[in-house]
Amino acid sequence: MKLTIERSDLLNALSHVQNVVERRNTIPILSNVLMDAKDGALTLVATDLDIEAVDSADARIASEGAITAPAGTLFDVIRKLPAGADVELELNPENRRLTIRSGRSKFELPTLPASDFQTMTGDDSATRFNVDAADLRRLIDKTRFAISTEETRYYLNGVYLHAADGDKQEKVLRAVATDGHRLALADAPAPKGAEALEGVIVPRKAIGEVRRLIDAVDADVTISVSETKIVFQAGRAVLTSKLIDGSFPDYQRVIPKGNEKRLVIDNKSFEAAVDRVSTVSAERSRSVKLSLGDGKVILAVNSAETGQGHEEIECDYGADAMEIGFNAKYLLDVTAQIEAEDAEFMLNDPASPALILDPGDLATRYVLMPLRV
Amino acid sequence: MKLTIERSDLLNALSHVQNVVERRNTIPILSNVLMDAKDGALTLVATDLDIEAVDSADARIASEGAITAPAGTLFDVIRKLPAGADVELELNPENRRLTIRSGRSKFELPTLPASDFQTMTGDDSATRFNVDAADLRRLIDKTRFAISTEETRYYLNGVYLHAADGDKQEKVLRAVATDGHRLALADAPAPKGAEALEGVIVPRKAIGEVRRLIDAVDADVTISVSETKIVFQAGRAVLTSKLIDGSFPDYQRVIPKGNEKRLVIDNKSFEAAVDRVSTVSAERSRSVKLSLGDGKVILAVNSAETGQGHEEIECDYGADAMEIGFNAKYLLDVTAQIEAEDAEFMLNDPASPALILDPGDLATRYVLMPLRV
Repeated sequence: MKLTIERSDLLNALSHVQNVVERRNTIPILSNVLMDAKDGALTLVATDLDIEAVDSADARIASEGAITAPAGTLFDVIRKLPAGADVELELNPENRRLTIRSGRSKFELPTLPASDFQTMTGDDSATRFNVDAADLRRLIDKTRFAISTEETRYYLNGVYLHAADGDKQEKVLRAVATDGHRLALADAPAPKGAEALEGVIVPRKAIGEVRRLIDAVDADVTISVSETKIVFQAGRAVLTSKLIDGSFPDYQRVIPKGNEKRLVIDNKSFEAAVDRVSTVSAERSRSVKLSLGDGKVILAVNSAETGQGHEEIECDYGADAMEIGFNAKYLLDVTAQIEAEDAEFMLNDPASPALILDPGDLATRYVLMPLRV
Repeated sequence: MKLTIERSDLLNALSHVQNVVERRNTIPILSNVLMDAKDGALTLVATDLDIEAVDSADARIASEGAITAPAGTLFDVIRKLPAGADVELELNPENRRLTIRSGRSKFELPTLPASDFQTMTGDDSATRFNVDAADLRRLIDKTRFAISTEETRYYLNGVYLHAADGDKQEKVLRAVATDGHRLALADAPAPKGAEALEGVIVPRKAIGEVRRLIDAVDADVTISVSETKIVFQAGRAVLTSKLIDGSFPDYQRVIPKGNEKRLVIDNKSFEAAVDRVSTVSAERSRSVKLSLGDGKVILAVNSAETGQGHEEIECDYGADAMEIGFNAKYLLDVTAQIEAEDAEFMLNDPASPALILDPGDLATRYVLMPLRV
């Protein structure tokens, strides 16, 4: 294998794949990135056996071939080379080392044979569709904060992606995440071919990698879903992830339907007030009590050890006075997603879940379980 | 105690003192900041028993008094209040709680009596002088990176500050730090009154706090030194620190005098090359070998496991060829301080310490012990 490639092209492709590699690995080959030079391009593959990332870049290939080398070291070396440089990669057939040459820099990295590298086999995808990258970013951003981190509830450790019926019975592509204490749901218009997508749970790490991959993309992303895998393709970059093998709970039952007490409040003022009062809450519970009365809400935190906080905010609330408690961090996670000036809370009673709506993005829904206060 | 103060004034003063407080404290009073309201000002004091920080701000005092309250919570609450707000602080004589009122926010924090708070007693300072804040920043910045972190060598856990004779026999105020592997020295013109300052070792944490305190100051800082303490005063802010009770080693013996092999090298190119080659060095040793020959230096790292790195840089070197090894991180710590385009190395042999000079700041000296390569 011998080729020349622009440093920026190589760095770009490496940055798309190298993050998948786990830094501490007991299996040496899993620290490596596969490099395959042929047909005028260098293709890079990284894997942690659950997720596989592939990207490629144009290269001037003097001699075809494939080899694997340490992903982290390779990425760091290329990153530290001066911008605008050309990079030559060559496998030394004698000592099986990969030589990197650029300007007056020369590096030699240990390698492992490409044949030891385990790539994910493609399988027949049942469903395949194109989604606008901006829509996919929104589906991820509005829901990922609610993904559970409890390993025992593995079926909640991801985003549940599926076709559903929207408010007006139109077909939507829906993302849902929940940890049992809160739930976040976002809809996007169902792309052609996605109308029949059955629910799949995309693991947290894959969600993070896809989000990184499409951060600056403004074209379509192709998604292919099979029984056990999901594939995201953006330009030349492809991310394949195993799906979580479990059943996502029936989230529809969790979304309150009959909440009639409506609170409309300036989101930024509310966010700042929650942040301030929660300063004095004991670290674990972080419970904030909301007292809703005629035209105002009082936020209160009361901790015997750490003190008291009390905030008053004007709001639009005309229903019966009530008190209800929430985890401050969960409230802030939701207010951070609200795009409208106002947040809209639909409440029932102090023991029932609250529905939070964003007048600026009607295709989202947030549910918060109250805390006893 | 009852007073009104501008939020920005209070925040500014709090930010100067609260960092001294250790976040995890077994002695409750040490988590608190002392607030003393009298004579039209609120004075704040924080301590960890080794360092004491004092600052004050103008306030409209309705009733004088002193009390202590949790520094971290107070700082966070004030920080989160909207800019431009007025803050009212009042001690409730019945429940001994401190009430903070601002706009429609109200907080109550637990307190401990001011009489329980231990302040450092002033003692007769033997030496007192004014130093330009920019000079003091330079003395700190150019040396602090070399402070030892080995607790057993407690006498190296700070910056050694003292009057000395400069290159031209002029009196200088000198800062020195060393960890036994490298040494950094910086001189400033000796301020009036500092000419006879005997050596004192200012602990690392105090150095950090002083640096924070004077970051934006462009006036003089008053330094008072006694047998056991050093006091830094910048405007209304005062930082008092215990000195390290030990003898700083005779650093003059460490600074090589007869090194005659002179290497002049572009500092940015050298820094980038060291950074790149060290990418492949095994984490612990981080050793880089410099091979000096006619008009060029070759940087090499050679690790059986992680690979090889090789860089060539043009330089000005006319002495006999030699090879010498250094810790890459220590080299980078020094290159980060060099202000001139070129760094100047004065070398002797592969086993002797190197002297590194900055043609852009002749009042600094850096010494690096070589590594065997």
